[in-house]
Amino acid sequence: MSMRIGILGYGNLGRGVEAAIKVNPDMELVGVFTRRDPATVTINTPGAKTYHTDALADMTGDIDVLIICGGSATDLPEMTPKYAALYNVIDSFDTHAKIPEHFENVDKAAKAAKKTAIISCGWDPGMFSLNRVLSQSILPNGQSYTFWGKGVSQGHSDAIRRIEGVLDARQYTVPVPAALEAVRSGKNPELSTREKHTRLCYVVAAEGADLAKIENEIKTMPNYFSDYDTTVNFISQEELNRDHAGLPHGGKVITTGETSDGVKHVVEYSLDLDSNPEFTGAVLAAYARACFRMNQEENFGCKTVLDVAPTYISSLSDAELRAHCL
Amino acid sequence: MSMRIGILGYGNLGRGVEAAIKVNPDMELVGVFTRRDPATVTINTPGAKTYHTDALADMTGDIDVLIICGGSATDLPEMTPKYAALYNVIDSFDTHAKIPEHFENVDKAAKAAKKTAIISCGWDPGMFSLNRVLSQSILPNGQSYTFWGKGVSQGHSDAIRRIEGVLDARQYTVPVPAALEAVRSGKNPELSTREKHTRLCYVVAAEGADLAKIENEIKTMPNYFSDYDTTVNFISQEELNRDHAGLPHGGKVITTGETSDGVKHVVEYSLDLDSNPEFTGAVLAAYARACFRMNQEENFGCKTVLDVAPTYISSLSDAELRAHCL
Repeated sequence: MSMRIGILGYGNLGRGVEAAIKVNPDMELVGVFTRRDPATVTINTPGAKTYHTDALADMTGDIDVLIICGGSATDLPEMTPKYAALYNVIDSFDTHAKIPEHFENVDKAAKAAKKTAIISCGWDPGMFSLNRVLSQSILPNGQSYTFWGKGVSQGHSDAIRRIEGVLDARQYTVPVPAALEAVRSGKNPELSTREKHTRLCYVVAAEGADLAKIENEIKTMPNYFSDYDTTVNFISQEELNRDHAGLPHGGKVITTGETSDGVKHVVEYSLDLDSNPEFTGAVLAAYARACFRMNQEENFGCKTVLDVAPTYISSLSDAELRAHCL
Repeated sequence: MSMRIGILGYGNLGRGVEAAIKVNPDMELVGVFTRRDPATVTINTPGAKTYHTDALADMTGDIDVLIICGGSATDLPEMTPKYAALYNVIDSFDTHAKIPEHFENVDKAAKAAKKTAIISCGWDPGMFSLNRVLSQSILPNGQSYTFWGKGVSQGHSDAIRRIEGVLDARQYTVPVPAALEAVRSGKNPELSTREKHTRLCYVVAAEGADLAKIENEIKTMPNYFSDYDTTVNFISQEELNRDHAGLPHGGKVITTGETSDGVKHVVEYSLDLDSNPEFTGAVLAAYARACFRMNQEENFGCKTVLDVAPTYISSLSDAELRAHCL
């Protein structure tokens, strides 16, 4: 079974999906769809083409799954329902509070078109969600804690860049080691935002900028930094480019719970990722396989990773999985 | 939705399942079924009864899922197909090499009776299998390593007890820290059996027994110990009872792989369990929920954890899961 994949959007995530398709022999990249002039977009897959998004109106017979690599703020709420009416689709929508609304919109469009959609796929939401649900179902008296990092938060880096006098910035979210230890001990600690994570910033300032003012603006920024212990380091653009070019990320879901009085268990799922967009792209590619198969079984409508049996994301047959992986 | 559960077999695992049912409000223990005289078996659930296994012939209307807590060597190959013809069943069959054969036997019986069966459920096989399949599907160029321990191996403890002059024994399997580090580094090391785990034995010898001879017999025992670096400590029965009464276990599935040249990811799933049978029982109880639901959806035949979408094991509704856990 070979799947023909389309990628809509060619930023970091789109390139991550493209890399993932190359290592999955049962997948073929048909093309990359962009809102830019496709002639200006160079992709890394010989044989695949670049198209303007408008071309998607006429290519429903050529693509088995469309992987939508847009932003959660404005792109995906509009794009995913729109294209679920034409294609099997998958996205990485990650605005947790708006998932139910997004689900309903995509579900309606996909069901009407007899298509299958998977939303909010990646690692959080995604693999982390799956681990939270598995561990809490096994340990219903337990408690799950999610930690992020050490890794780059692009949203927080962008927020720093908007400050006057800042030329460039990179923000790392870092879990607090004492919090990790307290959770693993099974004490079920109540942890404040400040106790769970610290924020570490590398900032390139314009010549003559007021560094103390910039540092204060960062540390007191509501939502982004004011609830955290934040460290600000001023460095040169050369240092930033040399030491902070990547987009590493990761984190942990730790669940502890008792099965009887005093009998404690710790379940920990941990990711250490050199590239957030490449790993997210790899998850999207694997679940694109599930999306296609579920559609072939006429399992229409919107799904999440929680609705997908693990066999559906593997390229191996059920019999091979039982013989070699179980 | 409430589920009526039967437990077949009342050893450590049966008691673990019983403890798990107590913390799942949607489950009710109907009774424990035993090959012993049921009058001699005292259980921990007020209101539930003990029955002889023969009673199972006439109770098909009273039980939604029968959780079979027998041994993999001789009990389960016979029991699970037999009772899959009468009940929805679930077991923890863990002889990896014989899973395909067991699956076929159970599948035939369950399909003929329009029942649903889940086999090989627990943590390995079970949660570890699920993590191997997820991680390898996401990182198809990657490699998964499974480590066990630190934890008690009952099979190895029993093997030591069979040596002349040994009164009691407890064997711990311990992963080698250097092997864990080599795997996490992403080097994809080739590790021999000896390089992955060591074996640590606490032995109570009879008065006047030849300790050197016992130690040599343990260390050279084929299959069990001869391929490992083994440490033997002689202790008193009091010390064994005091310090080694529990059945802790655990382990790790570590997968590393690249998504593009030099871009490396590490996925690690880790369990640290105070009680192996209680955690296994908790997994069985959660998947009993899936077994019942899949049967209600007329999804008949034999399944494994790989065939079960995570939502099926949760007591929360799909909408609740999307709103709170995704």
